Amino acid sequence: MNDQSSKKGETKEVIVEAARQLFFEQGYTATGIAQILKRSEVNSGSLYYFFPTKEDLLAAVLERYKGMLWPMVLEPAYTRVTDPIERIFAVLHGYRMLLLGTDFRLGCPIGNLALEMSNSHPQVRNLVVENFNGWRAAIAQLITEASDRLPQDIDAESMSFFVLATMEGAVMLARAHQDISPFDSAINSLRDQFDRLIQDGSTWSTPKGA
Amino acid sequence: MNDQSSKKGETKEVIVEAARQLFFEQGYTATGIAQILKRSEVNSGSLYYFFPTKEDLLAAVLERYKGMLWPMVLEPAYTRVTDPIERIFAVLHGYRMLLLGTDFRLGCPIGNLALEMSNSHPQVRNLVVENFNGWRAAIAQLITEASDRLPQDIDAESMSFFVLATMEGAVMLARAHQDISPFDSAINSLRDQFDRLIQDGSTWSTPKGA
Repeated sequence: MNDQSSKKGETKEVIVEAARQLFFEQGYTATGIAQILKRSEVNSGSLYYFFPTKEDLLAAVLERYKGMLWPMVLEPAYTRVTDPIERIFAVLHGYRMLLLGTDFRLGCPIGNLALEMSNSHPQVRNLVVENFNGWRAAIAQLITEASDRLPQDIDAESMSFFVLATMEGAVMLARAHQDISPFDSAINSLRDQFDRLIQDGSTWSTPKGA
Repeated sequence: MNDQSSKKGETKEVIVEAARQLFFEQGYTATGIAQILKRSEVNSGSLYYFFPTKEDLLAAVLERYKGMLWPMVLEPAYTRVTDPIERIFAVLHGYRMLLLGTDFRLGCPIGNLALEMSNSHPQVRNLVVENFNGWRAAIAQLITEASDRLPQDIDAESMSFFVLATMEGAVMLARAHQDISPFDSAINSLRDQFDRLIQDGSTWSTPKGA
């Protein structure tokens, strides 16, 4: 990469990051081009060169989020604990910290965009789904790793939808209430379910390999 | 009420209903005043007379939703079944029908507005919370009615947050995927949890009045 293309790549990155932050903070529709230019400190020529439409920019933001799953969501949780079930709740705990740390201003960026995009922007919707699928794949993997403690009829894929739905709904309620207790209630109930599954798994089903 | 005030009330109702539909279909930020005027077929003078700001109109829409909880959400479900646990799942089934019936265009109107409003509009946020609380109160009541079948440590209030969070997240995922299976996975897992709670409630705790 020569100096000029490196500079170009850098400008593009700066624009995507500025847009990502603004979409996260205030939503896609509510974010104006002028705000993106101001936050990124680039001129409109550069913006339109890289992103002919606002939707192109949103697609780049969603691509960036796919790359942020490991370093921002999974790795911090996986570093804290090693047990797969505990890792699931460590991931969920990350959203709790985000809610508290931002005074409920920020929740799940993908969830916000999901609701905003559901009726339009079919290409962008696919990228939302890819982000959800990446998150769920990690949770499904953890459930699979813990499968010897769970009832045999537990489907990891199906359960991962449940965990994601609970997280998204819990974040939504905490932000609406500006209070962590709805989040805690929902996640504690999910924890209670895992506890019961583990109890039932150990008494009702034959452990794998037994 | 004389003819003129009755006419006025009617115009106001027409505006609120038009705005409600448009906010539901495309979101609050994305809905323009011109669209509301067109849908309601009133002139801008009438609109500004009743609702000096767009936020005033949103508040009226959220007030209307509070009145729609019983006729639109609860009554249809309660008419179908009488068992309290079955009523919870009948309420949830209503959202399934809405998703399928609108080809995933419409989900939960309050959930959409909740995410859109979380960082702004504090007065409107309170009305979002009141809508959530009305819905949860109905679910908590049903859980209380079924309490003799559930473990004694189940907290109806806390559980109602879990049911609402699951519903909101499940609707969000179904709309993003344009597919009912994420919704079904989440709600089936919730059903499985209630089944386990009932099983545990009947074996581990002493039924009330025993």
